[in-house]
Amino acid sequence: MSDAPSSSPRFDRATHLRKNLDALDAMLHDERTLIVPLHRTLHAFVGDARTELHLPTLAEAAELIDAAAELVWLGELDGRAVFAADVTPIGNPLNHRVFARHSRFDELMTALPSLPTWQAELACYARALLFWHARHQYCGACAQPTRARDGGHVRKCTNSACGLEHFPRTDPAIIVLVTHGDRCLLGRQRVFPRGMYSTLAGFVEPGETLEEAVVREMREEAGVLVKNVRYFKSQPWPFPASLMLGFVAEAENDVLAPDDDELEHVAWFTRDEIASPTRPDFFVPPKYSVSGQLIAHFMEEKNGGVP
Amino acid sequence: MSDAPSSSPRFDRATHLRKNLDALDAMLHDERTLIVPLHRTLHAFVGDARTELHLPTLAEAAELIDAAAELVWLGELDGRAVFAADVTPIGNPLNHRVFARHSRFDELMTALPSLPTWQAELACYARALLFWHARHQYCGACAQPTRARDGGHVRKCTNSACGLEHFPRTDPAIIVLVTHGDRCLLGRQRVFPRGMYSTLAGFVEPGETLEEAVVREMREEAGVLVKNVRYFKSQPWPFPASLMLGFVAEAENDVLAPDDDELEHVAWFTRDEIASPTRPDFFVPPKYSVSGQLIAHFMEEKNGGVP
Repeated sequence: MSDAPSSSPRFDRATHLRKNLDALDAMLHDERTLIVPLHRTLHAFVGDARTELHLPTLAEAAELIDAAAELVWLGELDGRAVFAADVTPIGNPLNHRVFARHSRFDELMTALPSLPTWQAELACYARALLFWHARHQYCGACAQPTRARDGGHVRKCTNSACGLEHFPRTDPAIIVLVTHGDRCLLGRQRVFPRGMYSTLAGFVEPGETLEEAVVREMREEAGVLVKNVRYFKSQPWPFPASLMLGFVAEAENDVLAPDDDELEHVAWFTRDEIASPTRPDFFVPPKYSVSGQLIAHFMEEKNGGVP
Repeated sequence: MSDAPSSSPRFDRATHLRKNLDALDAMLHDERTLIVPLHRTLHAFVGDARTELHLPTLAEAAELIDAAAELVWLGELDGRAVFAADVTPIGNPLNHRVFARHSRFDELMTALPSLPTWQAELACYARALLFWHARHQYCGACAQPTRARDGGHVRKCTNSACGLEHFPRTDPAIIVLVTHGDRCLLGRQRVFPRGMYSTLAGFVEPGETLEEAVVREMREEAGVLVKNVRYFKSQPWPFPASLMLGFVAEAENDVLAPDDDELEHVAWFTRDEIASPTRPDFFVPPKYSVSGQLIAHFMEEKNGGVP
């Protein structure tokens, strides 16, 4: 379908080029340039399997650049320029020449585990930036229109008396594997798919450290007091704009006092109860998510829980 | 001046009360309620020493609540409600009865090291939220006015056809102690005070992990390739909205290729060169900052750099 690189190419944000208008213009006239199309929040995939992004080249689909509501230069993929394009203005994309035959438009979240890592990362980056553009068309300080600059990585207020620059937004959120002895804490939000249990999470608030956010959220959501808070790993989660920051922590005791507004159910689970659940529809998030990795880490530990 | 608690009180965001309008209303009629006043970006301090925030009670200064451009319920301090109030509309605050005699208004950043920790944390929280309000008076999606809700922790678009909810913003940024053998990497931005060198830092971008941001920023700013990236600690830095995420990392080699646009100077420093600098005005950030703590950590290590 596309002549995009199929093995693992090297992606570089090459941020020093964002202010280089001549370089950006040259990329928009290079037929090898790749496009990451988004229609509203939906990405384009090749065929129905959603195992590959549809990344048309400028040679194949230059009109998408002209039609785009927003255009963001993402960086270079093995030296080829890549632009994210919000193609919502083309109407039903499956009626469009470029997509009609072999494309499917779908939400990224469910496709993430089956995409090659480099495509998942590119798709997350594109989705995060185009969502940010949609929410920052006007200046929050003075209500006048903003205009994209620097390849789409800044929006500047067009009101010369204001002139504020607005930058892309990323919302840090903590997600925590809490253990007590040989059990870990899992819970269900009402919006979760039926049977799914996950580690507890919440947004970091202004004026607090990550560690304070971990302690506060575990107390608020489950009534659990935690200690020995340790960083595990991070993952961008642009649905719409989160950065998940995984932690492990130990509970002071196993008393729970859940907040019913936040969680439908929260409980302690042994490794056996996770591996061989009594509830037939029980499942935990897949390993491509930080939550899945935190739970897998717990399952692999022999000595009581934390690394 | 104020009967605010002077030893270390316990502060609780008590987030479950934010939607409780009756509880918030009762707090605004309780004379013991405390106010954190801000005038533009300036906090009120007791006297000239800037070692204590001026936190008037409602009994002392109820008119500040009425005059406030924005009012945010921060939480409870030993059970007493605390509100941040943007008092910019009162004009020169030193002409105002509440502040005239004993107050000084000043930037928080320089006062941070001399404030009690609980006051520094409260002040950072207040400043971050009031800055956010000032920048989100209008909806970025439709340009119509937004209105504060939930005690000032949400702004909702007043256009019923839009109705977007906007949440406080925190910008994650990495700051990194890079070591190579017995030396660490320090640099100067042009805007730094004369003689100051610090660890290198940069904002996390949409679609990348913290660790990817560390590798990218060190490559972009100093031309240094790093490995063994490990989390150190975090600190809110609301000037205006950052969350500093400290990391340590090791350089693959000691070759530097600095980006002159980002840094005025970057170099490797031994412990001796930091403790007994040849440049007479050389200094590093104080220990209350993550950068100061990263450098102190390096100075205390005997065996070559990283924990």
